[in-house]
Amino acid sequence: NAVSSQTVRTTNDQVTLIETNLDNQTGEGLGFAMQQLLAAGALDVFLTPIQMKKNRPAQKLSVLVTPSQVDAMAQKLFQLTTAKGLRYQTLNRKIMQRHFETIATAYGPLKIKIAQYGAVIKRTPEYDDCAQIASQRGLSLEAVYRTVQQAIQQHFEEEIK
Amino acid sequence: NAVSSQTVRTTNDQVTLIETNLDNQTGEGLGFAMQQLLAAGALDVFLTPIQMKKNRPAQKLSVLVTPSQVDAMAQKLFQLTTAKGLRYQTLNRKIMQRHFETIATAYGPLKIKIAQYGAVIKRTPEYDDCAQIASQRGLSLEAVYRTVQQAIQQHFEEEIK
Amino acid sequence: NAVSSQTVRTTNDQVTLIETNLDNQTGEGLGFAMQQLLAAGALDVFLTPIQMKKNRPAQKLSVLVTPSQVDAMAQKLFQLTTAKGLRYQTLNRKIMQRHFETIATAYGPLKIKIAQYGAVIKRTPEYDDCAQIASQRGLSLEAVYRTVQQAIQQHFEEEIK
Amino acid sequence: NAVSSQTVRTTNDQVTLIETNLDNQTGEGLGFAMQQLLAAGALDVFLTPIQMKKNRPAQKLSVLVTPSQVDAMAQKLFQLTTAKGLRYQTLNRKIMQRHFETIATAYGPLKIKIAQYGAVIKRTPEYDDCAQIASQRGLSLEAVYRTVQQAIQQHFEEEIK
Amino acid sequence: NAVSSQTVRTTNDQVTLIETNLDNQTGEGLGFAMQQLLAAGALDVFLTPIQMKKNRPAQKLSVLVTPSQVDAMAQKLFQLTTAKGLRYQTLNRKIMQRHFETIATAYGPLKIKIAQYGAVIKRTPEYDDCAQIASQRGLSLEAVYRTVQQAIQQHFEEEIK
Amino acid sequence: NAVSSQTVRTTNDQVTLIETNLDNQTGEGLGFAMQQLLAAGALDVFLTPIQMKKNRPAQKLSVLVTPSQVDAMAQKLFQLTTAKGLRYQTLNRKIMQRHFETIATAYGPLKIKIAQYGAVIKRTPEYDDCAQIASQRGLSLEAVYRTVQQAIQQHFEEEIK
Ligand code: NI
Ligand code: NI
Ligand code: NI
Ligand code: NI
Ligand code: NI
Ligand code: NI
Ligand code: NI
Ligand code: NI
Ligand code: NI
Ligand code: NI
Ligand code: NI
Ligand code: NI
Repeated sequence: NAVSSQTVRTTNDQVTLIETNLDNQTGEGLGFAMQQLLAAGALDVFLTPIQMKKNRPAQKLSVLVTPSQVDAMAQKLFQLTTAKGLRYQTLNRKIMQRHFETIATAYGPLKIKIAQYGAVIKRTPEYDDCAQIASQRGLSLEAVYRTVQQAIQQHFEEEIK
Repeated sequence: NAVSSQTVRTTNDQVTLIETNLDNQTGEGLGFAMQQLLAAGALDVFLTPIQMKKNRPAQKLSVLVTPSQVDAMAQKLFQLTTAKGLRYQTLNRKIMQRHFETIATAYGPLKIKIAQYGAVIKRTPEYDDCAQIASQRGLSLEAVYRTVQQAIQQHFEEEIK
Repeated sequence: NAVSSQTVRTTNDQVTLIETNLDNQTGEGLGFAMQQLLAAGALDVFLTPIQMKKNRPAQKLSVLVTPSQVDAMAQKLFQLTTAKGLRYQTLNRKIMQRHFETIATAYGPLKIKIAQYGAVIKRTPEYDDCAQIASQRGLSLEAVYRTVQQAIQQHFEEEIK
Repeated sequence: NAVSSQTVRTTNDQVTLIETNLDNQTGEGLGFAMQQLLAAGALDVFLTPIQMKKNRPAQKLSVLVTPSQVDAMAQKLFQLTTAKGLRYQTLNRKIMQRHFETIATAYGPLKIKIAQYGAVIKRTPEYDDCAQIASQRGLSLEAVYRTVQQAIQQHFEEEIK
Repeated sequence: NAVSSQTVRTTNDQVTLIETNLDNQTGEGLGFAMQQLLAAGALDVFLTPIQMKKNRPAQKLSVLVTPSQVDAMAQKLFQLTTAKGLRYQTLNRKIMQRHFETIATAYGPLKIKIAQYGAVIKRTPEYDDCAQIASQRGLSLEAVYRTVQQAIQQHFEEEIK
Repeated sequence: NAVSSQTVRTTNDQVTLIETNLDNQTGEGLGFAMQQLLAAGALDVFLTPIQMKKNRPAQKLSVLVTPSQVDAMAQKLFQLTTAKGLRYQTLNRKIMQRHFETIATAYGPLKIKIAQYGAVIKRTPEYDDCAQIASQRGLSLEAVYRTVQQAIQQHFEEEIK
């Protein structure tokens, strides 16, 4: 299952970014809306602190969606937030080609994401797996990542030889 | 004057976003520029804290204008700020259709903005009206909104019945 | 069960604020650490974006604890984060006196927090209750709060009469 | 009226910093509260964007007051914000000794603030004066400051000779 | 060498903005990546604090490049950061036309940047020159700018007469 | 040279935090001041984006110094910034006890910082060493850290056996 034996292509596609500035919704409401927008299928949701007129601190809500989701997500966004308007644009995207492999680690077999773009290869464990291990064993996320990273380097060094 | 008896259409239009990064203007100067850009007709102006090279904290100044305002507002922005360049793009926008109605509240008659997008309806008092009431009566803005919100719910519940 | 029939005292106590600047831990690691510190008994945990030397974006991690928790939480903080030092201080605190009452709402009986400091009274539903209702019924948090707020105003207006 | 003929002492005093984290008040409400707290006599008010639990963006509200104002400003803060608790501490302060002089400028006579701490002297025009001039003449704040700064350097160079 | 005797044209061109959200790279790593991206030829690089899902503080990395640099800089960005995807768009840009002149100042001859857009003219010294002077003489950057600004105003006033 | 054979004590000491809000200094000036304050002996310097009255974005400058440096650093801060006042306080500090060891790595011998607080041990390479290696070899900082981390784990595992 060596990486070199697989067809790896760089992916070019498009993503739509929906944004709106919110100065009339609370942090509680925005935290809730973020979770509901993700549950409704948004690719990603993030918040940027901004400063608006009349001395108002505010948040720019950014929602990344596939271009075909725009109408449905706009409806959702108007429902979950206090926004009365939103702006959107479709952006080009470059994504590292990715696949998964399972390797042996000190914590048992673990799924590893292998991402490639030209000569760049990144091999990383999944956050949710590592967070669960860290939580169960009372470790920091960093300690778990370090141990898994060592297993990754040993596994793939051997394969490449 | 029930909402249901009115033609409500979702508006799709365009808005131009002008942006520039400023690491050589003071906060005093930026606060002044924000007010002058709004006075010059910008639809909205907001600031985002960013971090630039050479350990410089900076602000990204964002100005939303109608596409036809770009040249005039660029001139204004170069005049009011220390920017030597700016970037801009025209974005799609979805806006909730809106109209105003006046209802009776504990503070006297008050103008209410009614915004609609598909099945989503939002009825909100105007900030400036409520801020004036709060200021005169020594109340928080939240206390005024709560009272007006109650009047809104009573008025429109009755209309819908 | 009127508020006026209860003894309400303003509380003055102390709280210890532990802080450290982190430029060598990822956002993933910080999000995980925040959750673990809360689970370990911190009163509150929050993050402030800061800018450090060598062009490094960083986060100031702030942990509010009772003064007697300092040693245990410092140990926990060193374990869960990449910090090699922390600073702390004990602050005075004023807290609104609070108690809970259950009232009838359109969503069934709901626990209401009543907070008082001198002449200021705040009556608010609990976030977790409202978030659960909003999530189950597909509403925004704001819509639920508005409905509950109306029930709050009716319940307590009647009591006061 | 040379600076050297005046008694200039570095001032050491104390200031109390009141802070609270707000994740349940809107930007509109916070902008209003900031203005009312300043109007109520706070020495200064500022907001810091922070990130709290449950994915909530929030603001830390900071109010600088004289130590004797703490009780009155705490009452005011509880009234104007959604805070149910606040923390405070008294800090040492060093302030540059300051006095004012009026000098001739291209815009007519203008009041100049002269601040001194040991060997450091700063001579600056007042923001409100310059903002008014800039606004009336359609200039940037920076353009006005540059012109006034030149008048300041000429006036005080001559005096020192 | 008066400005008025020179051909000054407003420049309209295009710039490509590459962006990615990073919640799994440390501040140390991001500060290093910023420097390397600038060294690799990016027009500008800046960071914006954002808040992502799962309580993660993060940074949006923004890289401004010429449209022809996109492929090379994407490769570089994937190599220097932990990003597994990036989005990009080409924006319109307006730049003030600029040229340099050397004038006499209290610190010796200094290169001045003269930028023009329509009726707006800005004459500013270069940061690196002034930072070097400030550093050598133990002055603040502001003190050096003030002195140079006075030389600028005298030089160009005389020329215009 | 095993860690267990060394006396490791948790250090408790004090540090003074000097802070001032700056809305009248540019990002250029603040980046320069940060570097000069570090050069003048400050333990650490960092900036926090804040929002002040009159729609002004600003920065809170924080300088950590030893308690005996306060007077000298206050003088320096007044000289390098536009501040006309500053506030300061002495905080308690807990620091992980630390010493250095040199180990063999794929990049040659490298100095490793070993920090300990109770049962918590952290072994990390120095940023400057790794940044230099990354820069020379065209690697990301993360790639260098991963390789050194592996050398750290092998070296100390062997010692502990
Ligand atoms: Ni394999
Ligand atoms: Ni594979
Ligand atoms: Ni009606
Ligand atoms: Ni209507
Ligand atoms: Ni009751
Ligand atoms: Ni009660
Ligand atoms: Ni005089
Ligand atoms: Ni004088
Ligand atoms: Ni000339
Ligand atoms: Ni010229
Ligand atoms: Ni050893
Ligand atoms: Ni040792």
